[in-house]
Amino acid sequence: MNIHDKSAAVPHVTTGALPKSVKVFSSPEGADDIRVPFREIALTEGSGEPPFRVYDTSGAYTDADAQIDVENGLDPIRDDWRNNRAADGNAEFDNTEDYEGRTIRPEDNGNVSASHLARAFPNMRQPKRGLDGRAVTQLEFARKGIITPEMRFVAHRENLGRAATLENAAQALSDGESFGASIPEHITPEFVRDEIARGRAIIPANINHPELEPVIIGRNFLTKVNANIGNSAISSSVEEEVEKMVWAIRWGADTVMDLSTGRNIHNTREWILRNSPVPIGTVPIYQALEKVDGDPVKLNWEVYRDTLIEQCEQGVDYFTIHAGVRLGYIHLTADRVTGIVSRGGSIMAKWCLAHHRESFLYERFDEICDIMRQYDVSFSLGDGLRPGSIADANDAAQFAELETLGELTKIAWDKGCQVMIEGPGHVPMQKIKVNVEKQLETCGEAPFYTLGPLTTDIAPGYDHITSGIGAAMIGWFGTSMLCYVTPKEHLGLPNRDDVKVGVITYKISAHAADLAKGHPAAQLRDDAVSRARFDFRWEDQFNLSLDPDTARSYHDETLPKDSHKVAHFCSMCGPKFCSMKITQDVRDYAAKLNDKEQGMAEMSEKFKEMGAEVYVDADKAES
Amino acid sequence: MNIHDKSAAVPHVTTGALPKSVKVFSSPEGADDIRVPFREIALTEGSGEPPFRVYDTSGAYTDADAQIDVENGLDPIRDDWRNNRAADGNAEFDNTEDYEGRTIRPEDNGNVSASHLARAFPNMRQPKRGLDGRAVTQLEFARKGIITPEMRFVAHRENLGRAATLENAAQALSDGESFGASIPEHITPEFVRDEIARGRAIIPANINHPELEPVIIGRNFLTKVNANIGNSAISSSVEEEVEKMVWAIRWGADTVMDLSTGRNIHNTREWILRNSPVPIGTVPIYQALEKVDGDPVKLNWEVYRDTLIEQCEQGVDYFTIHAGVRLGYIHLTADRVTGIVSRGGSIMAKWCLAHHRESFLYERFDEICDIMRQYDVSFSLGDGLRPGSIADANDAAQFAELETLGELTKIAWDKGCQVMIEGPGHVPMQKIKVNVEKQLETCGEAPFYTLGPLTTDIAPGYDHITSGIGAAMIGWFGTSMLCYVTPKEHLGLPNRDDVKVGVITYKISAHAADLAKGHPAAQLRDDAVSRARFDFRWEDQFNLSLDPDTARSYHDETLPKDSHKVAHFCSMCGPKFCSMKITQDVRDYAAKLNDKEQGMAEMSEKFKEMGAEVYVDADKAES
Repeated sequence: MNIHDKSAAVPHVTTGALPKSVKVFSSPEGADDIRVPFREIALTEGSGEPPFRVYDTSGAYTDADAQIDVENGLDPIRDDWRNNRAADGNAEFDNTEDYEGRTIRPEDNGNVSASHLARAFPNMRQPKRGLDGRAVTQLEFARKGIITPEMRFVAHRENLGRAATLENAAQALSDGESFGASIPEHITPEFVRDEIARGRAIIPANINHPELEPVIIGRNFLTKVNANIGNSAISSSVEEEVEKMVWAIRWGADTVMDLSTGRNIHNTREWILRNSPVPIGTVPIYQALEKVDGDPVKLNWEVYRDTLIEQCEQGVDYFTIHAGVRLGYIHLTADRVTGIVSRGGSIMAKWCLAHHRESFLYERFDEICDIMRQYDVSFSLGDGLRPGSIADANDAAQFAELETLGELTKIAWDKGCQVMIEGPGHVPMQKIKVNVEKQLETCGEAPFYTLGPLTTDIAPGYDHITSGIGAAMIGWFGTSMLCYVTPKEHLGLPNRDDVKVGVITYKISAHAADLAKGHPAAQLRDDAVSRARFDFRWEDQFNLSLDPDTARSYHDETLPKDSHKVAHFCSMCGPKFCSMKITQDVRDYAAKLNDKEQGMAEMSEKFKEMGAEVYVDADKAES
Repeated sequence: MNIHDKSAAVPHVTTGALPKSVKVFSSPEGADDIRVPFREIALTEGSGEPPFRVYDTSGAYTDADAQIDVENGLDPIRDDWRNNRAADGNAEFDNTEDYEGRTIRPEDNGNVSASHLARAFPNMRQPKRGLDGRAVTQLEFARKGIITPEMRFVAHRENLGRAATLENAAQALSDGESFGASIPEHITPEFVRDEIARGRAIIPANINHPELEPVIIGRNFLTKVNANIGNSAISSSVEEEVEKMVWAIRWGADTVMDLSTGRNIHNTREWILRNSPVPIGTVPIYQALEKVDGDPVKLNWEVYRDTLIEQCEQGVDYFTIHAGVRLGYIHLTADRVTGIVSRGGSIMAKWCLAHHRESFLYERFDEICDIMRQYDVSFSLGDGLRPGSIADANDAAQFAELETLGELTKIAWDKGCQVMIEGPGHVPMQKIKVNVEKQLETCGEAPFYTLGPLTTDIAPGYDHITSGIGAAMIGWFGTSMLCYVTPKEHLGLPNRDDVKVGVITYKISAHAADLAKGHPAAQLRDDAVSRARFDFRWEDQFNLSLDPDTARSYHDETLPKDSHKVAHFCSMCGPKFCSMKITQDVRDYAAKLNDKEQGMAEMSEKFKEMGAEVYVDADKAES
């Protein structure tokens, strides 16, 4: 199917539930118009366990009851919230106006010839923008003490499983090490509001992206994962990109960045946004560069400003803006092994040097804030000078830029904008923690959003792993969102399999981080998988895992028969010899002993009398 | 090809050099009989860089000049060392005798019928054993102040690259965080001897494994990786196992454990040992169990002792012995989510409970030491009570056993045996460090050898990654050897691809750990890869990486043409728009500016005069 063939221009996307899973919706008390999606995994009948509920980023695509029509896009659920609130006479929510948006121009799609132009999304809506003097951003609402539907939504979403474990929450938290985070036992909408008001969390939610299922990014919430997609001048098409988005969220991506360059950028982005239930981020300078024929020297404020408005109107939820790449920092990269590896950073560096002027992004930062505030587009302050190799980690250029990002954070906050901060990159393990510490201090605890970091440079082809290590650690230390790295990093564009492997790897890192921080409900899923494993409930083990398909197919490679999926052994040991089987015997035996002798403690006493301390006291052993 | 077909019974193994690589040998000064293998990777002509030398575990199989004859086995290089030394009149090395070994019995191969019996290795040698009153083990030599050829070999091997960076070694070390390790700038044979003498490092080197290229395991040396292979009752054949060993060392496994169960164990092991240049470890209780028809209750000291001697005579270099699973600890596992998951641990637990007796491994530990000392088989004291799930990490059972392992370490040391200690398992990140701290303290700094640990239970199919995270961290904290986990963990037996992915993942973890500890030469390879990447020397980037084949094939998926491998762009951005390209422009520009204005410092001064501090001072920015 080719996007240029008008009769077949509707992107094909992956739909259908995950194995044994159903989409369920749950509403916070007293807010029936807010329907928070979860996925429930049914466990085998004999397990005696109820369905297991997990956080679900996959949108309507995994809902058997949903009608997917990519030409129409997803339901604009947030419009309903606003209308309902406004109908309740809550004037606070009547804060935007519809208006005649900017006209789409040929350069928005890279001046592509008609024969190569991707079809425009067929159901365009008028854009909205904030009214002067009214609260528009989640930050502004939060500061006014107003709890928005978005805040209510994320509170309910994040609370997943905590009610069930509330009595154990305090213990889980004390068992973890959160390095000064303030994770509560239970998330209230008021807690969400407070975290947003103090800038410690954001809900990226452009008012022109009503299809969004809101997500909160902050160190006191679940660690999030971003997946990058995007065509380049070399390869990939609109429909591939829409499917990549759907595919990435199917496996758990919390946000998606569209890093497209080249042709058809505008139209591709429209298709993605109208069909995305997760926040979409972009790097506007990429498109601005296309508009000036790829020559950084020709960039200017006018074309950049035009691009920002274009993307604000489309509904992009957060922008990476490399306003920290200042003229005075560029020479600090001259002796690096890998110079400037950020695309945005290198574009701005080239511009600064060519004109021998301070960055227009830095100089115009106030104006950028004013535009983004009108649509509640969140800042993702880009780390254009991030290290691209182990040798360059934590150097003067990187930390100089971070200082500026701290300065810009305060300006954006003053303007009412939500902010997160991007971080490296390539960092050896012993240098990771200081990155978080410096970022938290310099940027007033604004959420940190890091790329990896890769903990070594020597394994191209495996950089999901070199970086998954760093991501788990930096997430533990306090990073709020982890930008995935695929196996193709440094080598090529990720395909469908690469996107999946990248997302699953980062879900592992994020979950490992949540566990280590002592998140009150994180361990529920580990325990469910481990119980299934120990009980030889193979189907449950597969279905509870991050990637049921892969787990099942690996099992079936050696033991393909259905009977093997109920067998009380596995291919590692075979039926005659199995440690888990033996342990069950041991447990039975111990229980029997226990009954017979009225408890191990008495047994121990008896043996002590015999002159040998045979049984160890659990408390004593632990110390 | 089937092993039972005598005409085609010779295992086929993978041979041939890695891309652009040659095997080179280097001898320590004054020891021409010791030839230490390295791999040299040739870089492209235009790079201006000399060939890059890397540590090489792959043995003769990657040596274009070597004649591989699996029927004959590898050259017994260690015999030559001993003969040469003895010929020099160095009586210290004349410490063993040849003797009529134990007769091979049908039960050694699981009483397999003649038609299913794997062919015996055709070139059997008589076994050797240590003479009474002479130093036999590396530990005994070390304590006597004697530097063995094995010590000289590993010193030279470990020193790789340090000479070149000796001036920077101190800086690298101070840049790292080694948590109290004592990594020297340069490794001397005397340093090796001293580390072995104090029990902080081991060279597993059975006197009956003369084919061995010695390797040192200790926290002040490069972090090592073990790969497990082994058939089970269900699947795989002798030739598959030999090839798995050759394949695992091709990608960098430092040692290989043969965990075979079921039939043909003895013959499989003989083929592996005679063809292995790396230390081979086993878990003797697995074979002992086969000899009593798989019923743990029937195990006894006699059959275990017989199995030890059988494997000592074959040349196994280290034994996992679960002597820490004491009767009195077993009830501590009763409330666990996953009970006892170690196979050896569960076998011994069952035995202890069935007989209601203390473990015969614990009670006979002195005798076990006496046997192992005679052949210099190293102990790998097994953690039979290791946690099998996040829920069970760091519990009373685990740490009770560790106390006993500490006690046994001292006994083994007194007997002259080399010792390392096995560790978990499944551990969330925040609970990893204390494992190393407790182990070092309890076991007198004997090398720690850990399985992973897995940092979450929720990703079967990706446990090389869940555990690669934990492995990198625990390696950093002080673990000496990391036992790999493949993607098939918990699901099935690893195939060839799984073995490779497992080894590469763990090479990443081990290298990330070395980098973080500040190993003086570790970063050389990262820097070489990063320079190649930044220079668009695609071929060099592939060939310097841990897995050149995968790196190349990923690149070629999007940019297959040869011209693309010299192109100064990649598929991420395309030719028009590339950050690395732009950075080169920036660098040129900066250099030009530099010339023109006599340096950035002056430039900065000039701008200060103009009233704006445009250039940031590197020192100031870093603080």
